[in-house]
Amino acid sequence: MSPQSARRYNAFTNDDVRLDGAAGGPLSGLSFAAKDLYDIAGHRTGGGTPDWRDTHPPAAETASAVARLVAAGADMAGKTHTDEVSRGIFGENPHFGTPVNPAAPGRVPGGSSSGSAAAVAGGLVDFALGTDTGGSVRVPASFCGLYGIRTTHGRVPIDGVLEQAPSFDTIGWLARDAEIFARAGAALLDADIPDWTPTRVTIADDAFAFADTGVADALADALSTLSGAAGSTAHATLSTDGLNVWFKHQAVLQGREAWATFEAWIDATNPRFGFEVAENFITGRNWSDAEHEAARAARPRITRIIDSFLADDGVIALPTTPFPAPLLGQTRSAMKTLRGRVITLTAIAGLAGTPQISLPLGRIDGLPVGLSLIGARGSDEKLIGFARRLAG
Amino acid sequence: MSPQSARRYNAFTNDDVRLDGAAGGPLSGLSFAAKDLYDIAGHRTGGGTPDWRDTHPPAAETASAVARLVAAGADMAGKTHTDEVSRGIFGENPHFGTPVNPAAPGRVPGGSSSGSAAAVAGGLVDFALGTDTGGSVRVPASFCGLYGIRTTHGRVPIDGVLEQAPSFDTIGWLARDAEIFARAGAALLDADIPDWTPTRVTIADDAFAFADTGVADALADALSTLSGAAGSTAHATLSTDGLNVWFKHQAVLQGREAWATFEAWIDATNPRFGFEVAENFITGRNWSDAEHEAARAARPRITRIIDSFLADDGVIALPTTPFPAPLLGQTRSAMKTLRGRVITLTAIAGLAGTPQISLPLGRIDGLPVGLSLIGARGSDEKLIGFARRLAG
Repeated sequence: MSPQSARRYNAFTNDDVRLDGAAGGPLSGLSFAAKDLYDIAGHRTGGGTPDWRDTHPPAAETASAVARLVAAGADMAGKTHTDEVSRGIFGENPHFGTPVNPAAPGRVPGGSSSGSAAAVAGGLVDFALGTDTGGSVRVPASFCGLYGIRTTHGRVPIDGVLEQAPSFDTIGWLARDAEIFARAGAALLDADIPDWTPTRVTIADDAFAFADTGVADALADALSTLSGAAGSTAHATLSTDGLNVWFKHQAVLQGREAWATFEAWIDATNPRFGFEVAENFITGRNWSDAEHEAARAARPRITRIIDSFLADDGVIALPTTPFPAPLLGQTRSAMKTLRGRVITLTAIAGLAGTPQISLPLGRIDGLPVGLSLIGARGSDEKLIGFARRLAG
Repeated sequence: MSPQSARRYNAFTNDDVRLDGAAGGPLSGLSFAAKDLYDIAGHRTGGGTPDWRDTHPPAAETASAVARLVAAGADMAGKTHTDEVSRGIFGENPHFGTPVNPAAPGRVPGGSSSGSAAAVAGGLVDFALGTDTGGSVRVPASFCGLYGIRTTHGRVPIDGVLEQAPSFDTIGWLARDAEIFARAGAALLDADIPDWTPTRVTIADDAFAFADTGVADALADALSTLSGAAGSTAHATLSTDGLNVWFKHQAVLQGREAWATFEAWIDATNPRFGFEVAENFITGRNWSDAEHEAARAARPRITRIIDSFLADDGVIALPTTPFPAPLLGQTRSAMKTLRGRVITLTAIAGLAGTPQISLPLGRIDGLPVGLSLIGARGSDEKLIGFARRLAG
């Protein structure tokens, strides 16, 4: 990658971090980038804020996920921007600026794996590592027109990755091409990617109804293809409580965990955040014990409901995001409302610990919007195999 | 001032702003600095945070207070650091660093007029302009061993000054020397500074009791001199509710007003703050209407109580701060507790709209701590005259 390319799309950090892939591996010839939450031995992890970088020593070890890709032959081209300590869903970073969405000019790229999505969508690398706690791979995949996956919680080792909310944090990646997406997946999952077809697709009516008018239409053809490929199709309401109730539980659990993760550092160093991220932390800290207990109690119930739709090789289909990428430059109050709506859809898989893959199969007025499949825990390679088949 | 001096004590901003005093004025030969909340025509006001500076145009007019000093012959040597948009009481700024306290090495200078106090205490200028909303002149005066005044609310024109909480915002200044302090005061107040002696000193027993052990001892000699100079001495408890109740009212009123002042800018620009300041804003925003109404109702009652001690040329004596300058490098949670204690004492004059002068008359283990006099509204020049007499 030339220095000129490295500056395009404001995708990469200024850290000059490159790793050469092992010779002769299955990913030889492919390049990737890693979100600046992944440790690279000898380099400082930035985490999207200069104060994190400046208050931590260089990493002693390289994150396993990066090491797996390099061992498989892929070249790491650099580190990519992220929302501050991964606490954002739109990719707007007040310290380093917002990476450009090459697929939707004038609009946010999505986050927090914003630079990874920009680098891939802009053709600077073949694929990129992100992380997904509350939607941070799926959302930029949807907004930038990419394949992206949130893996089964705990499936891909997350050592050496700056954590946020450990019971939600997962590894994910993004690619333009389903075949390359699958090759990267084989290395990261340490598994073959099978040809696979779900026996049943459950179309999540409440999730589609929650999306903007037009999203269902934009995804109709893809949904039809998907349903045709699968064994059978059904419609269902996922949450009889209401998806907004599940969203609240996600907000409470993730917010509490994120505060616990960063509290000591914040207390010791008074780091600078954009106001919105500081507010998110305080909101997370301030949930009551009663709200926390309600959310803890609800999570296994939600998991059982989601599991019931995924039994016997079923998948759930839903819009990845309720709208395509929002315009840049909006107020925080406007973006806060939009953020709540996005996370209402991404919270489902996060609460249940299931994998979810976003397929770049929808367009509204020229803007990408993703169709998502949620699969059973541990079915990551099946979902990827199905995506490859649909693209083939 | 040489470039080398300008860098000492981290007192001055990087803005090269100098104004020559009018020839032949009463302040000719004196130099001053102005907190970077004061507009200077043609220059950007920084407000202690790069995001404020970068989202506002250069000032069209010079603040009246600065113009009065320059017209009186003083040379303005530069702009001084402040806590972020004046929201801090210790002088710690995460963007520009903490100005050095020349009188208490290894300790905070106090804020938010932190750079003004550092510049004066370090001998870089003869006096300096600050602002005092919740204690921002009085606290650094106490911690740095300086004379400092919070003027009667509305007494000195505040046009061209970045506001925070308008019903509390006041002009103030700091000096090492009581005579220079008085000369600057004459220009700023547009009034002669009389020789004056209060008829009665009321020693605020609850304020002294609220201070650390040792503060009363450290101020005992000064209090004795003061009482001897005045017509009579009395002891009183200012707040039968408890000073902590008054503090809460101050926090509610100031916090609400500060949020109203900055809300639209914050919503539009997502500015970066140190976590503590963001938290202060959110705390201010989140006070309930009931708490706000209680505070609004209490303020005139508190004012009447304070006024009752100030009738017929009386003054109230209290420690400016409940302890000398805290050590640098403490956690936010530790500093938050200390901040609450400081503002419990400074809130009294703020709520009542009265002037308060801090005199550098106490020392504890070599560290300065101020003795304060609260006077009736409009008695600014009398307080200054009395301070000059005590020093003479």
